[in-house]
Amino acid sequence: MSFAGRREITGFSNPTVKYLRSLRDKKHRKREGKFLAEGLRLLTDARECGRLPETLVMAKGRDPHALLTELEGAVEAHGGEIIETTADILTKITGKDNPQAVAGVFSEFDTSLSALDRSSADIWMVAQALRDPGNLGTMLRTCDAVGAGGLILIDDCADPFSVEAVRASMGAIFTQQVAQADWADFVTWLRAGDGQLVAASLRDAVPYRGAPYAGPCFILVGNESRGLPEEYEAECDLRVTMPMKGRADSLNAAVAGAVLAYEVLASLD
Amino acid sequence: MSFAGRREITGFSNPTVKYLRSLRDKKHRKREGKFLAEGLRLLTDARECGRLPETLVMAKGRDPHALLTELEGAVEAHGGEIIETTADILTKITGKDNPQAVAGVFSEFDTSLSALDRSSADIWMVAQALRDPGNLGTMLRTCDAVGAGGLILIDDCADPFSVEAVRASMGAIFTQQVAQADWADFVTWLRAGDGQLVAASLRDAVPYRGAPYAGPCFILVGNESRGLPEEYEAECDLRVTMPMKGRADSLNAAVAGAVLAYEVLASLD
Repeated sequence: MSFAGRREITGFSNPTVKYLRSLRDKKHRKREGKFLAEGLRLLTDARECGRLPETLVMAKGRDPHALLTELEGAVEAHGGEIIETTADILTKITGKDNPQAVAGVFSEFDTSLSALDRSSADIWMVAQALRDPGNLGTMLRTCDAVGAGGLILIDDCADPFSVEAVRASMGAIFTQQVAQADWADFVTWLRAGDGQLVAASLRDAVPYRGAPYAGPCFILVGNESRGLPEEYEAECDLRVTMPMKGRADSLNAAVAGAVLAYEVLASLD
Repeated sequence: MSFAGRREITGFSNPTVKYLRSLRDKKHRKREGKFLAEGLRLLTDARECGRLPETLVMAKGRDPHALLTELEGAVEAHGGEIIETTADILTKITGKDNPQAVAGVFSEFDTSLSALDRSSADIWMVAQALRDPGNLGTMLRTCDAVGAGGLILIDDCADPFSVEAVRASMGAIFTQQVAQADWADFVTWLRAGDGQLVAASLRDAVPYRGAPYAGPCFILVGNESRGLPEEYEAECDLRVTMPMKGRADSLNAAVAGAVLAYEVLASLD
């Protein structure tokens, strides 16, 4: 449902508005194989990574901006579609009270494990049953910061192409490789090549500072409420403990992953 | 609006239901000086820290649970109020589709800087204009994990007593000291005693690993979008850089604070 060229939409009941709005729902995203990214900064990041939206939706009467003009030109030059609409309709599409003045529609990427090139980076993050799209996007952002190759999503995770995850990734959805797999397939894939699987654990673990990390290092983080299943921890090549000085016995999943990832980065650098 | 004893509420229009529901709004929380915490785990954490709700709201027909029975007994013994209601009404109060079977009303704590005892810990976190209540709660959780004294909120931050912040803190709202102040008052307070102010920065900074941290160390984290104002960075005693290997030049605020806090912990331990 994408047409090259430029058009204007002024009616809330226009089918394209309904289509764009439907991409906020996972079911519709999966059926269409498309996702939404909002905001000039995010779309500029995407463009700099070589990813242009198939459809660019802009509010009429927006402030002119050189980056937006460049983006518009690039989308047109590549045969994409430009839609101009009202600020109210853009609000309806993005579901935010204070919408960005621009949104783009992208095709979802291939998220099969076989598409990952593990030799491309020394650090990978692996999340198991991560339910919060904000945590997922934050982990992608951390992956970018530590120079990781990407994020592997195990079992039933939040959708990396949700508006919330894309937003929290701050553009890293366009720079990082993302794969989705169940645990058995992941382990089979992992053991078919080089790779050290590491998790924070309270069982049979060594201090996380100075632990013998080795690249490519796969940092495994568990579900927000339940942590990692015991058999997943048992599969790890290295289990590390992080100090817990207070009452709680765990950190936020994205925080735990980041503290470990920075430790691995310092160790391998 | 709290009455010792036990009563049952079955009507949606009951004024107590409206009152409890109103505590989801900051304006009403501030007027009443009360906040809501949801879930048996959170309320049990609070009790173990010596904090009992003034009012305990429970769904009728809930599964029996020894911890809930203990909590109920403790609230009654301390002259608190017990309200039994329907699952539907509890859903209305908490605003969640899948509510916890129990919620409690607590009095907000004193959040003046003068109530902080800086000698009680070697690590403190300081957040400037932190807008996301989930990030705020996550920082409290990290404070607990690294044995920090608490979190100081500078300028216009999210409300630490919001339902989202309390939930993300995983109980740390009950263990950590929390203060609110504007920048000028904070600096005056800080410079009246010992304390090293540290921030992640790109200007005039040293690597964060092995930097000369000293306790009590105050780790300053800036706003999610804009980072720290330049004059706030200039006030810092130590500016550190963290590796940024990718396209982005910053981490999620709660993540950046946590990576720094674990580094400070390792350095001071």
